[in-house]
Amino acid sequence: MSDRDEPVRPEARLPKGLFDTPANELRATADMLAKIRNVFECYGFEPLDTPAIEYTDALGKFLPDQDRPNEGVFSFKDDDEQWLSLRYDLTAPLARYVAENYQSLPKPFRRYQVGPVWRNEKPGPGRFRQFTQFDADTVGPSSVAADAELCMLAADTLEALGVPRGQYVVKVNDRRILDGLLETIGLGNEMDAAKRLAVLRAVDKLDRLGIDGVTALLGKGRKDESGDFTKGAGLDASQALRVTCFLSVAAETFSRISAGNYLPQGFNAGDDEDFYLIDEMLSSFHESPTMTSALEQIESMRKLVRATGYGMDRIRFDPSVVRGLEYYTGPVFEAELTTPIKDERGQSIRLGSVVSGGRYDGLVERFTGVKVPATGLSIGVSRLLYGLKTLGKLPVESVQGPVVVLVLDRDRIADYQKMAQDLRNANIRAELYLGESGMKAQMKYADKRGSPCVVIQGGDEKAKGEVQIKDLILGATLTSIKDRDDYLKKQAEAQFAVPEADMVKAVRDVLARQRA
Amino acid sequence: MSDRDEPVRPEARLPKGLFDTPANELRATADMLAKIRNVFECYGFEPLDTPAIEYTDALGKFLPDQDRPNEGVFSFKDDDEQWLSLRYDLTAPLARYVAENYQSLPKPFRRYQVGPVWRNEKPGPGRFRQFTQFDADTVGPSSVAADAELCMLAADTLEALGVPRGQYVVKVNDRRILDGLLETIGLGNEMDAAKRLAVLRAVDKLDRLGIDGVTALLGKGRKDESGDFTKGAGLDASQALRVTCFLSVAAETFSRISAGNYLPQGFNAGDDEDFYLIDEMLSSFHESPTMTSALEQIESMRKLVRATGYGMDRIRFDPSVVRGLEYYTGPVFEAELTTPIKDERGQSIRLGSVVSGGRYDGLVERFTGVKVPATGLSIGVSRLLYGLKTLGKLPVESVQGPVVVLVLDRDRIADYQKMAQDLRNANIRAELYLGESGMKAQMKYADKRGSPCVVIQGGDEKAKGEVQIKDLILGATLTSIKDRDDYLKKQAEAQFAVPEADMVKAVRDVLARQRA
Repeated sequence: MSDRDEPVRPEARLPKGLFDTPANELRATADMLAKIRNVFECYGFEPLDTPAIEYTDALGKFLPDQDRPNEGVFSFKDDDEQWLSLRYDLTAPLARYVAENYQSLPKPFRRYQVGPVWRNEKPGPGRFRQFTQFDADTVGPSSVAADAELCMLAADTLEALGVPRGQYVVKVNDRRILDGLLETIGLGNEMDAAKRLAVLRAVDKLDRLGIDGVTALLGKGRKDESGDFTKGAGLDASQALRVTCFLSVAAETFSRISAGNYLPQGFNAGDDEDFYLIDEMLSSFHESPTMTSALEQIESMRKLVRATGYGMDRIRFDPSVVRGLEYYTGPVFEAELTTPIKDERGQSIRLGSVVSGGRYDGLVERFTGVKVPATGLSIGVSRLLYGLKTLGKLPVESVQGPVVVLVLDRDRIADYQKMAQDLRNANIRAELYLGESGMKAQMKYADKRGSPCVVIQGGDEKAKGEVQIKDLILGATLTSIKDRDDYLKKQAEAQFAVPEADMVKAVRDVLARQRA
Repeated sequence: MSDRDEPVRPEARLPKGLFDTPANELRATADMLAKIRNVFECYGFEPLDTPAIEYTDALGKFLPDQDRPNEGVFSFKDDDEQWLSLRYDLTAPLARYVAENYQSLPKPFRRYQVGPVWRNEKPGPGRFRQFTQFDADTVGPSSVAADAELCMLAADTLEALGVPRGQYVVKVNDRRILDGLLETIGLGNEMDAAKRLAVLRAVDKLDRLGIDGVTALLGKGRKDESGDFTKGAGLDASQALRVTCFLSVAAETFSRISAGNYLPQGFNAGDDEDFYLIDEMLSSFHESPTMTSALEQIESMRKLVRATGYGMDRIRFDPSVVRGLEYYTGPVFEAELTTPIKDERGQSIRLGSVVSGGRYDGLVERFTGVKVPATGLSIGVSRLLYGLKTLGKLPVESVQGPVVVLVLDRDRIADYQKMAQDLRNANIRAELYLGESGMKAQMKYADKRGSPCVVIQGGDEKAKGEVQIKDLILGATLTSIKDRDDYLKKQAEAQFAVPEADMVKAVRDVLARQRA
């Protein structure tokens, strides 16, 4: 019997990497999503929603040559033994949707989608197992005009969110440029996939490690300050040199131009250095047809965005951009905030890219065998929110709490409920205190809720047909007032009686005074 | 090698019971959710979000006496072998959240939450495996004022969504009334759980089967028109009589009062019949203390909502309301649309309740052992959306498509992109045609997108420094114009040239004309 008396109680906790979102953060997110939605709609994208659960094979998430889903996704079997998975991004479901509905869609097809995605990965700082993405994709066009437009969309979205021009940059590259480079050093074959990936990972660390660090990672490997050793890509000296030479062209060109000691004729400082860079790369790497064709496309994109009014300060070519995802097939881009960001302890942190995207011409083909060009971008909502918050670009004030109608006489709860309802009918956030505690606890509750004021009617007030209004915002300032007359005046303003019939008006006046 | 040449292609399809949501439905849903949110905020509820994944034990979804999750939920093991599940409602995660954060929460704690939930059940018409719920809950108060308030919230929400007073009703009951009835017929013990459930299921069918059908289901069982036999609860004759007597008190009282041939003194027709009903039940079933106490609480709730201005037409006691969920412990309620609803083929359908809720005082106790009273409601968003759509209460017009800038000369795509951007900068939805097709296909695309107008600039227009604006809405009406002069006039209005510099203004004028 003791088992019955002491039932086993589950612990109230969340699995690792999953979090609740409290009111203030939810409101800030909703505000941010509404602004993003406006920009995306303005660009002609239409909303779409797909379910959280898809067939694992439709997401392309079976392990190669195995009848078992990738460990990076949450998977479970349906009752007919088919594997299902939670979506890990919004692009794979879009590819499934397009393949399934191809005939009936307008072409090109532009859609945006916002929602949670799930990754069954080891969580860490800034790495969650559920997070929100906001995507826009254009399916159909092979033209770089579609890619250029997404870069402009990224820039416009950041500005709509209050990031000033100059405090963000959209960096553009083309994964075929690096592919071409790898071909020229003999890593173009399928059997070199692992080595290629190691080179790309090294290049991706240019920002953080500088050219020497990257050089080490291209060769045998690198020991960091803590003594940890990272194995390198194992390139020989001439291969590694070719890669660092490629990166140097970019780095040197920029630094020479920035220093003002090198400007090709007809150029203005601070404008269009990337045209010069593309030109220099075309001549330095002309032996790779893959790279040449990609550089020519980048140049078309560059011209398009410049003609539409987007300068180097907003969108620029950066050959060190490496987007990891295997499925990109052409232009890739990422936007980052350029203002240094510090965490709560004042430490500088690398936020990473807040928008990223690129062209993936093979994703729909997986289903249909027919090539359907597509390009898209994805906003990391939580990361961007964190960045905006840190930069002070988010309204920090929370929504005002409700007016609380206190309950002094339990028998008259219907009267109090009526007062709360009268306030709501006047579109004022209001609630009846529903707990069991006394006056003091009720005032504490109102404080905790961030109430602007409370409404009080005890026996005395009822007898006089009055209610008391207590302004909690003004009331909180009283203790700091030194001057006696001023104190008494403010005290009278902070709590006063009005006839019952004037309650709504009096509350409205208090709210207006607080906003003033 | 042929395996490589002909890869196995996954089929593009969704698992059963899961659906994509297209743009129009998404927009209508977003509009509806915003209206609901406004009302909930006005009542002082604060938003909260919890992740989709929870520990199975925290959701209370292990099968009794087995270390295996209920089949009704989607479950999978974490890498530490603990069972995880997708949430199947928003109430169980709230209970987990409250138990986890009890110390820091304001008390009472009022929160609302909107989001998808998942049921691993057999899908059917109107039964999906993912759907959206919108919940509000008040945690802490044991007072019926909290339950009464939720009934008022349900009524206000439906009116905010455009359902006129008289076309919905919130029906209130208390599960202890039926519990009390079951006690009086000897079914109060734990071993009678299955029988109790069968009785409740029978009572729940009163609307559909009438008193005779229910009587059959209380006894041996019932054969329906198709010949299918449903096994009954197996009550003996005197037990069944007691239950039908209970239901008759309700039915007869209502019909006598509606017919105007029975009105207790001091009552007005059409007002407060449920007070009389409560009174009649109190005298008919006075031998059950459980029922008596519940009826007294219902009477308190009734008084509260009446005092706040909610009449019988909006909120009323209905003893036949059975909410299935095991966890309800007190007042239960459900709101339904009372206007007959027909499906696309004109067949009348039973939509069922669009809002439902009740008191569940045991849910947080599961974790902590401490009783925390709570009451809440849940809106079935998809069902309500369907009901509103059928009743014509949803704006049917879709959002206007974007203005499409046609591409006539591929070499001048940057110019066209600039035009689209100029329109966007003036806050006009616009896009560049990004496909590869000719003029005719571009016009077709614009039609499919619901574009208000297109912008055209070929070589001739460019030479003159002009653009053509073509109004697609007005243009579509031309074929129906019989009068020649009228036709020519409208034709001229439907397509016209303006100087390039006036493009934005001309488009804005066309949009204004279409809205007029």
